[in-house]
Amino acid sequence: MKDFFVVDAARFDGENVTSFFAISSFSVRERKGGGGQYLALVLSDKTGSMEARMWEEFASAMATCGEGCFVKVQGQISRYQNKFQITLTRMRLAADSEIEIADFVPATKYDVGEMWVELRGYVEAFSNPDLRRLVFAFLDDEKIGAAYREAPAAKMLHHAWIGGLLEHVVSLVRVCKATVPFYPEVDPDLLITGAILHDIGKLRELMWGSSFSYSLEGQLIGHISIAQGMLREKLAGLTDFPEKLRILVEHMILSHHGRYEFGSPKLPMTPEALLLSALDDLEAKMQAVRNEFARDEAAGRSGADVTEWVRSMERPLLNSKAYLGQE
Amino acid sequence: MKDFFVVDAARFDGENVTSFFAISSFSVRERKGGGGQYLALVLSDKTGSMEARMWEEFASAMATCGEGCFVKVQGQISRYQNKFQITLTRMRLAADSEIEIADFVPATKYDVGEMWVELRGYVEAFSNPDLRRLVFAFLDDEKIGAAYREAPAAKMLHHAWIGGLLEHVVSLVRVCKATVPFYPEVDPDLLITGAILHDIGKLRELMWGSSFSYSLEGQLIGHISIAQGMLREKLAGLTDFPEKLRILVEHMILSHHGRYEFGSPKLPMTPEALLLSALDDLEAKMQAVRNEFARDEAAGRSGADVTEWVRSMERPLLNSKAYLGQE
Amino acid sequence: MKDFFVVDAARFDGENVTSFFAISSFSVRERKGGGGQYLALVLSDKTGSMEARMWEEFASAMATCGEGCFVKVQGQISRYQNKFQITLTRMRLAADSEIEIADFVPATKYDVGEMWVELRGYVEAFSNPDLRRLVFAFLDDEKIGAAYREAPAAKMLHHAWIGGLLEHVVSLVRVCKATVPFYPEVDPDLLITGAILHDIGKLRELMWGSSFSYSLEGQLIGHISIAQGMLREKLAGLTDFPEKLRILVEHMILSHHGRYEFGSPKLPMTPEALLLSALDDLEAKMQAVRNEFARDEAAGRSGADVTEWVRSMERPLLNSKAYLGQE
Amino acid sequence: MKDFFVVDAARFDGENVTSFFAISSFSVRERKGGGGQYLALVLSDKTGSMEARMWEEFASAMATCGEGCFVKVQGQISRYQNKFQITLTRMRLAADSEIEIADFVPATKYDVGEMWVELRGYVEAFSNPDLRRLVFAFLDDEKIGAAYREAPAAKMLHHAWIGGLLEHVVSLVRVCKATVPFYPEVDPDLLITGAILHDIGKLRELMWGSSFSYSLEGQLIGHISIAQGMLREKLAGLTDFPEKLRILVEHMILSHHGRYEFGSPKLPMTPEALLLSALDDLEAKMQAVRNEFARDEAAGRSGADVTEWVRSMERPLLNSKAYLGQE
Amino acid sequence: MKDFFVVDAARFDGENVTSFFAISSFSVRERKGGGGQYLALVLSDKTGSMEARMWEEFASAMATCGEGCFVKVQGQISRYQNKFQITLTRMRLAADSEIEIADFVPATKYDVGEMWVELRGYVEAFSNPDLRRLVFAFLDDEKIGAAYREAPAAKMLHHAWIGGLLEHVVSLVRVCKATVPFYPEVDPDLLITGAILHDIGKLRELMWGSSFSYSLEGQLIGHISIAQGMLREKLAGLTDFPEKLRILVEHMILSHHGRYEFGSPKLPMTPEALLLSALDDLEAKMQAVRNEFARDEAAGRSGADVTEWVRSMERPLLNSKAYLGQE
Amino acid sequence: MKDFFVVDAARFDGENVTSFFAISSFSVRERKGGGGQYLALVLSDKTGSMEARMWEEFASAMATCGEGCFVKVQGQISRYQNKFQITLTRMRLAADSEIEIADFVPATKYDVGEMWVELRGYVEAFSNPDLRRLVFAFLDDEKIGAAYREAPAAKMLHHAWIGGLLEHVVSLVRVCKATVPFYPEVDPDLLITGAILHDIGKLRELMWGSSFSYSLEGQLIGHISIAQGMLREKLAGLTDFPEKLRILVEHMILSHHGRYEFGSPKLPMTPEALLLSALDDLEAKMQAVRNEFARDEAAGRSGADVTEWVRSMERPLLNSKAYLGQE
Repeated sequence: MKDFFVVDAARFDGENVTSFFAISSFSVRERKGGGGQYLALVLSDKTGSMEARMWEEFASAMATCGEGCFVKVQGQISRYQNKFQITLTRMRLAADSEIEIADFVPATKYDVGEMWVELRGYVEAFSNPDLRRLVFAFLDDEKIGAAYREAPAAKMLHHAWIGGLLEHVVSLVRVCKATVPFYPEVDPDLLITGAILHDIGKLRELMWGSSFSYSLEGQLIGHISIAQGMLREKLAGLTDFPEKLRILVEHMILSHHGRYEFGSPKLPMTPEALLLSALDDLEAKMQAVRNEFARDEAAGRSGADVTEWVRSMERPLLNSKAYLGQE
Repeated sequence: MKDFFVVDAARFDGENVTSFFAISSFSVRERKGGGGQYLALVLSDKTGSMEARMWEEFASAMATCGEGCFVKVQGQISRYQNKFQITLTRMRLAADSEIEIADFVPATKYDVGEMWVELRGYVEAFSNPDLRRLVFAFLDDEKIGAAYREAPAAKMLHHAWIGGLLEHVVSLVRVCKATVPFYPEVDPDLLITGAILHDIGKLRELMWGSSFSYSLEGQLIGHISIAQGMLREKLAGLTDFPEKLRILVEHMILSHHGRYEFGSPKLPMTPEALLLSALDDLEAKMQAVRNEFARDEAAGRSGADVTEWVRSMERPLLNSKAYLGQE
Repeated sequence: MKDFFVVDAARFDGENVTSFFAISSFSVRERKGGGGQYLALVLSDKTGSMEARMWEEFASAMATCGEGCFVKVQGQISRYQNKFQITLTRMRLAADSEIEIADFVPATKYDVGEMWVELRGYVEAFSNPDLRRLVFAFLDDEKIGAAYREAPAAKMLHHAWIGGLLEHVVSLVRVCKATVPFYPEVDPDLLITGAILHDIGKLRELMWGSSFSYSLEGQLIGHISIAQGMLREKLAGLTDFPEKLRILVEHMILSHHGRYEFGSPKLPMTPEALLLSALDDLEAKMQAVRNEFARDEAAGRSGADVTEWVRSMERPLLNSKAYLGQE
Repeated sequence: MKDFFVVDAARFDGENVTSFFAISSFSVRERKGGGGQYLALVLSDKTGSMEARMWEEFASAMATCGEGCFVKVQGQISRYQNKFQITLTRMRLAADSEIEIADFVPATKYDVGEMWVELRGYVEAFSNPDLRRLVFAFLDDEKIGAAYREAPAAKMLHHAWIGGLLEHVVSLVRVCKATVPFYPEVDPDLLITGAILHDIGKLRELMWGSSFSYSLEGQLIGHISIAQGMLREKLAGLTDFPEKLRILVEHMILSHHGRYEFGSPKLPMTPEALLLSALDDLEAKMQAVRNEFARDEAAGRSGADVTEWVRSMERPLLNSKAYLGQE
Repeated sequence: MKDFFVVDAARFDGENVTSFFAISSFSVRERKGGGGQYLALVLSDKTGSMEARMWEEFASAMATCGEGCFVKVQGQISRYQNKFQITLTRMRLAADSEIEIADFVPATKYDVGEMWVELRGYVEAFSNPDLRRLVFAFLDDEKIGAAYREAPAAKMLHHAWIGGLLEHVVSLVRVCKATVPFYPEVDPDLLITGAILHDIGKLRELMWGSSFSYSLEGQLIGHISIAQGMLREKLAGLTDFPEKLRILVEHMILSHHGRYEFGSPKLPMTPEALLLSALDDLEAKMQAVRNEFARDEAAGRSGADVTEWVRSMERPLLNSKAYLGQE
Repeated sequence: MKDFFVVDAARFDGENVTSFFAISSFSVRERKGGGGQYLALVLSDKTGSMEARMWEEFASAMATCGEGCFVKVQGQISRYQNKFQITLTRMRLAADSEIEIADFVPATKYDVGEMWVELRGYVEAFSNPDLRRLVFAFLDDEKIGAAYREAPAAKMLHHAWIGGLLEHVVSLVRVCKATVPFYPEVDPDLLITGAILHDIGKLRELMWGSSFSYSLEGQLIGHISIAQGMLREKLAGLTDFPEKLRILVEHMILSHHGRYEFGSPKLPMTPEALLLSALDDLEAKMQAVRNEFARDEAAGRSGADVTEWVRSMERPLLNSKAYLGQE
């Protein structure tokens, strides 16, 4: 268990601490005045990152540890140029059993188990048995299910945290269910199927170890086409799955980004694909808004003015409730 | 009252009919073999339009009637080149009292009175008294209220029918109310205010007499900026309306098209403006989908294939329910 | 066998002919002066189309024939308003065995069998056994192989004829083989694999009966993603196919249109994908050029001036050789 | 009065100075070796900015001063890492009466009073009495008039200085008057009205205290729509103002940016709006050119080569006269 | 001399006329009932075009006349389907001396000689002798001078009439001279040089015989690059022309369309190029406006409403003066 | 001759060296503790650049040397903040004869002489004598030929090294010759002429002294239009060169960038221009790919992952061969 976090450094200034970190950067440098080398590291956890130096006896650490590894370290906190750093006396690779991934990368604040049960409940309620068995073919797949409960929904933008994909999907399904009564053209089971499977390719597009990154397949194929491939794999194991349903589900996956320039090879052409694409975009934008407002609040900015420029949305935002003084 | 409609022509082939029409096209032509002139008209009602000819005694009709007029005519139905036409024996200007506008331009299939009551109910339920009095300042304005209950929401695309604006707004408010619980950043009263007022400029942008068209102000100013002006006029009559609320409402109106190239001078920057803009776009698109499917059904097309190319959406559509055979 | 073609009409003016046609348009009309109905048809073959009328004894024809059917007809050629038409005395559905598809839709002028042997030869020469068995899994699939030898490469633009896909691919492979020596970064077998499989989805995107059209799957999924799905299906039957090769082949298929706005969900990122995409575009453009020049020549235009505006290329073209040859 | 400016630092190296500054940046920092805090400031005036440090007795200053304040300071100039800085011994908030805004932010080099008289003269000469009373309703409004004589025309680009708006408008009106004789379609009074009112919204979009920034209303509404609102307010006080003129003036304001993507909700559709939009753009571009050339000259660059890349124009520029050696 | 024009047809209904025309369309057709051929023509002059038929004795006409030729014809005016046509009894090729080009294609309403003198006057007043001799090298070139006085400025849009180029340039120079005093960065002689030479390539891009069309060089090279080539040719004959001036003049020509997508290979980077490009665009737009208003007036449309959609400007226009004059 | 290179610094740490460098940056600074000035330089050669300081006796160096000069220096290598620098004791301007340009800027790794012979060989083999004499007019022009053998093909992107233009052209011609057999519409001599002359304008657009930069003419005119001008100059010296050929060659030069937004004033309209433009783009892209892979290899990156983001191509790349483990 990890009981010292980067964010606590100020309270431990000058003291010795023992804790676990992920290594974000690892290099061997020459001492300025000659006289050999030292290790220059950046250590990080979910609360931030700090510089570390190891001047002595780092041969074994150097041989076994590297960028992306989890390590157990002992060292002294000090302040240098108004930033905290840690001078290490010991460092070794951490065992898997010593590491709680949630200590190192941000995680959803919702209960993963509860969300999972909620999601399965929606599928159990399907009236279309073919779609039900299709979705359960994914959720009941042990490897896929486990990954689905862990995966972030993005590397950097909205829902970039452990459990973020599940959180995004559950939230999207709720909004789908709230709006579908207004659109009788839409088949509810088909829509929910799309909501649950549209981002399934992110399980292979993203990697979430000590940090979030793209897999090579993610870079070359992308989560939209990965999802289509996964759908084909699952369908191969389902006997007599209706061809028409297959085409409609595939279409929702392919078109969910809504525009060619966002990587969708097809525009949404069915009522379900149109609704899914619109609500997915809405969910992503509103979560981005939420993140911006949280960042402002954390930074003690009042809400009386617009936020910084939000690059992904090409505009600044205004927290209207804070502006109106309701908070 | 009008009891013969264009759509009924086949049943009256060869017979004499008396009915009211709007004149869509009016021209005086030379008879081929010489021997004077005749009137060539296109007469229309909400079910379609047909060619008409008047060969004799049209002097008085010619002097008083013209494009855009409502007329009462008597004549005989015949078929020419596989289309029906009517040879007129009498034509005169119709009195206002003889005309039911709904016979000539398409109208909403919902009850306008009920929608109006529903809409007012939403406003009465506001917890913010300033927004309540602002919206009622519009709805209670006799001229605005009357127009709001009549206006189409567009000249040609979605909701292009009498009562279309009210239908669009009521539908939009319902979806707003269904989704707002998922977005705690959004002030519900502010959102609903935006939903009710965002298209108010269409009352002056569009004209709905015997057909739908743009006013000159609509062409030069546009409904977004007209709405902003109408807001200013109403606010001038409300004492102590909070400046911050004024800015937030104005921002929703200005940004509701969501993109500069769609004529919005500002991008949505508040949670309310973002949600309103997304749902307004969704509503318009889903109504366009509905219209396309209805057109296909009317034309006896089966739904087994995609629709014609839908120019406003730059794609064809697929009626997935019909395709799946659920209808 | 068909021995009268539309293009021959002038030579048969006034005579009776018996031949096979595809029905491009089929409608029952009322005779002008009353007195019942008649059939108004457009009959077509690979050389063009002509109006047909059937005034008598068409009950059985009407019951069995329709748009898209192949028929055997007997009738008399005549000229009306400077166009030729045919007045039918007999018409019946043609048997499959009576029809040579190449008589009705344009077909490649190259020998399909020879091209097929050439293509297989390239694959046999692969040094990479995995890619060899992958490509043969497609070519040796009886259904796929048969379709591959028939399919057009497009509905309307370049190579829109029977055998067009094979012609396009063989031509592309030749250019690939000619250029690959200059690019040592490129794996030749991988490139040729991409060239042979990149458009394989067109086998399901396009339909070529009596004319060319898009399948519903083609509309909703598109040939790029269909191809990816077909690849997945074939790979399921190949044991131990290297994952890295799978990703690289899939990437070539997904990125071969070269730009998001052309429906590629990924941009070409490997040397093979870049080269394939560039040469595929070049082949399509040069074939379009060839088509334009052939059209000009057929119309007796001299080449001394630019062609008509070519919409797909947003410019007119100039046949430089013809232009130079006139000095 | 301020008699020491940042630009003079070199001449006062090592000496004590007393002067007024605006605080651009204000932070409290920990001394490196421990032993308490100090103030780290950036002080600025219209000639530039410099670092300042206050090591002792800053409690009262810290309590009363902050970013954006004007202060009176006493301190010693020194050089550190080739830049000048000032070590403060005293600092207090400055009284309004002690501050001449023009000492702190750049100001027009033209006489504001003269420009104002010139502008009013153009309006007095109007032959259209309605437009005359409309424009004077703005100019004679004490608050608007005062702001109009002070406001910059932009935060950063062309005319970003006190009096910049008036300078821009006077210059624009002159060019309007010079070109209008060539365009008989243009109503001169209407054009000049547009030139004077088109940017009136900047009075509320921009804020000019110790620096230039955007107001919240500027961010959410934008100067185009603010101007439209101000027009509505003024028109409410003018009896019988012709509706047609109102629409034409409003149209010029709304369309003056000339393109949707520049925030104009309407494209210019009248001769006046077209001419105004073209000349406004020309004026802005030529002033940007002038600024670039002045910057080059100030930096001692010769004009023999192109300027740095000018981001707002997406190109570098060339001072052709300097290049030709005429200067 | 031509004394019957297409526009006069109504006054000559039923009469025989003799006149000159350009042949816009020429085809030989089969008589409906058999019995040989006839000529179907479209004859045109600057006032419009009309159908013509020649039923007899057209062998010699057919042998000598064709599309684009000027002919002298004799025939009778009649009305057919509410349009006038002419039945020819005689037709022969017209001699050059019989033809006044201005009778067949529209021409400037200004005096070409006067404009020419005015233009030369501007150049004589240059203070820069190098630019003066450069421009005169063009104007004094007999062939260029003659073409310059005849050429249209466009095939279809603004100034598409004989003398249109000269009219456009003179008008542009006047506006240049009126605005240059406001921009001291601009060298007046250089600007006027650019104004006179910027479109010189149109002398070879456009062809103006019996109608306006593009030359092959116009299609493949374009007037911008043609002008650059012409500049090079002229400079070859001028000794010691300053290299710097050459670059600046060339730059104005290359950049005068102002944007890459309008065919300028360079954006305007000098004050002269910027001003020239802006004023050239303004002149073209205002002339397009003028043309639209004239068309409306000719069609008897009142100015109370916007014009038809103007494709080249992607908007309709409003004649504000006419609109105001109707109150 | 230069025998110490920047890349060798580590091996000479602490030693005195004598060598030649280009001065990339030159400034005179104040010593921190007062006591006069010193020279701060950046010295560079083709292997990189390093900081240099000259503390004493630099008066004569200061008077004669500056940015862009080649100098001979003597000094001692030391390490400061983990980077190497050199403390100069002597520095003087280098004579032209002492400098081998290839020591200072990167150069092609191919034999320039051999490439030149190869290129000339292609031209000698032309069957079209006019094109042969045209191309030789360029290659045999002593000044042009010498520059052609030296020029880089770009300032920063592909082929940005001495001899890069020749390398690019030879490579392009080879690919042209390999593909032309597949396109019988293409005139081979015309195509090769285009390949050799398309970038000839770079001889005047780029400058290659001690570094690569743009000339003023390059900035204002651009290599496309410069090339067109050079073509005109050469053609002036060739008697009876066919006008049609001139237009076709000019067209290839003007259109070779393939799109307006890339600075081509015309789109490719002939088979030769289309093929040239496609292959030129392919060559540039594949060379960029090669550069990226080389950079990765130099940095010890394995090829198992994608490269950094390549800005000019708006994507990262993957070295597929390295990824497959073939290297």
